[in-house]
Amino acid sequence: MEIQKPYLLFLADAHDRLAAKVALGIRHWHPEYCIGQLRMADCQVDCGLPDLDIAAARAQGAKTLVVGVANRGGVIAENWVALLRQALESGMDLAAGLHNRLSDVPELKETAERLGRSLFDVRHTSVVLPVANGRKRAGKRLLPVGTDCSCGKMYTALAIEKAMLARGMPATFRATGQTGILVSGAGISIDAVVADFIAGAVETLAPENAPDHWDIIEGQGSLFHPSFSGVTMGLIHGAQPDALVLCHEPTRTAMRGVDFPLPALDECMALNLQAARLTNPRARFVGISINSAQLTEAAALTYMTDLEQRFGLPVVDPFRQGVDRIIDRL
Amino acid sequence: MEIQKPYLLFLADAHDRLAAKVALGIRHWHPEYCIGQLRMADCQVDCGLPDLDIAAARAQGAKTLVVGVANRGGVIAENWVALLRQALESGMDLAAGLHNRLSDVPELKETAERLGRSLFDVRHTSVVLPVANGRKRAGKRLLPVGTDCSCGKMYTALAIEKAMLARGMPATFRATGQTGILVSGAGISIDAVVADFIAGAVETLAPENAPDHWDIIEGQGSLFHPSFSGVTMGLIHGAQPDALVLCHEPTRTAMRGVDFPLPALDECMALNLQAARLTNPRARFVGISINSAQLTEAAALTYMTDLEQRFGLPVVDPFRQGVDRIIDRL
Repeated sequence: MEIQKPYLLFLADAHDRLAAKVALGIRHWHPEYCIGQLRMADCQVDCGLPDLDIAAARAQGAKTLVVGVANRGGVIAENWVALLRQALESGMDLAAGLHNRLSDVPELKETAERLGRSLFDVRHTSVVLPVANGRKRAGKRLLPVGTDCSCGKMYTALAIEKAMLARGMPATFRATGQTGILVSGAGISIDAVVADFIAGAVETLAPENAPDHWDIIEGQGSLFHPSFSGVTMGLIHGAQPDALVLCHEPTRTAMRGVDFPLPALDECMALNLQAARLTNPRARFVGISINSAQLTEAAALTYMTDLEQRFGLPVVDPFRQGVDRIIDRL
Repeated sequence: MEIQKPYLLFLADAHDRLAAKVALGIRHWHPEYCIGQLRMADCQVDCGLPDLDIAAARAQGAKTLVVGVANRGGVIAENWVALLRQALESGMDLAAGLHNRLSDVPELKETAERLGRSLFDVRHTSVVLPVANGRKRAGKRLLPVGTDCSCGKMYTALAIEKAMLARGMPATFRATGQTGILVSGAGISIDAVVADFIAGAVETLAPENAPDHWDIIEGQGSLFHPSFSGVTMGLIHGAQPDALVLCHEPTRTAMRGVDFPLPALDECMALNLQAARLTNPRARFVGISINSAQLTEAAALTYMTDLEQRFGLPVVDPFRQGVDRIIDRL
């Protein structure tokens, strides 16, 4: 799957930035992919891109309209369909990462087939996946793991890829979730594959590579999250990570969506390391990535300095300090 | 999903007992479900049931023809279709657990729809599954876990259910794989669900129950198997087991299908216990189940006595000694 660039980002009627996190992610990490934004009348989010209608975007070369918003329920809304169809008719493909598929909307499916356009439902892979074989692959791999869902694993991975590329290191971000796929333009949403193929999907996604090449694989869930731990376990075994980065949001008091406490950092690192060493005995932690957005800068620095002393690893907030000190460890 | 009994077991052209393991499993565990067997001309397996053609089976009350055989590739063979269609036309439903679906064969789909018959493709659930919530459910649960795939977890679970029922204990086997589903007539094949719903599928499969009721949940894979560990992790967290039984085949030198050694028993028990305690802090091991078919009885007894002393737990081969000593521990 390779989504054609550049993109017109569709923000629909998004009321807050969380609803538009896919569009904001693409804009933040790959502004060069983005020609403009398309907003409906009551949209309250601005990605800081030119507002373009479909004809103007197409005239400037837009190849794909990307649904950059998730409404409540995460489905394609009825009042979006006319605009999405217009984009197909203008010559663009469509891409989305919602629960229902673009191709499940008869009007869009029929229009795309008639015109030979592509519908990218990035949550659902069409690749036939193998059962994982666990065989060691050439190349190096880094995997962020977390104390919880949604604590900064994708952001950390993208920051590490960007910083490696800036140093001239060969590196590729490998997306494992719908936002990451739409940000980077490729990947496999491993939470949507059939359970027997989780690790096999990751082996496919991060294949054998040059010995000095780094795959920076997007992490998912947590081994301690009772809803999604299976996805995380298969991801770790399929990734065969050489390097692990622990991601943590220090102000959270319960895991996302469930009534469970967060694990202690040392316990979390120990279990992730044990799992990783099954398929890569040389796996080790190279840093800790803190999402400190809810702390003052002073409080964040105190907290991170304390962690550095406890664990003897570089501790950074990628947003505040960047990830260079982690890369220095590789 | 509730498959109507009694069954006519279809052995097709099976050449050996491994190919007919589903039929042999149903015959072994639930002879009362089975009216007879249907064998094609070159079948070389005998379940020890009366040979019946479709008309005779129907006349004796057969409600479902169960495909009890897996050919190479695990698909519905073309030369079976005429017989399967005849079963539908006689008034029977069809059930199978193969990779392709009965409903993917146009002739069978059309015939079933026309006659109002049911096609049970037990590998694929039609239940809409929730994301697991991890909330404690009333009732007790036992889960066999393994050092590897195919080392006796289903056999152990079925033996425990049977022995509990014989003692008058309220117990239900909960099938998580296609063979277990066809043996017991219900269940969810968790290796075939979407990865995000592994644990949620198990919460659905083994719901809240009376405080003294035991769900005996079929185990799958191994936390140490690099192909299937994600399924196992989600299964453990969804099961919230009160009691774990370690299953092991002592003569195996590598894990099934991959070039990995088996884990040490103590290491395997420690990791399974740590995982289980996330959703049930009172989880504990209550026994070890050894598949000793490859050992002489004397060698098996020596091996098991040694394990008993090392671990302080009852160690049995369910086939040779039964599982009563494990149940005594509950």
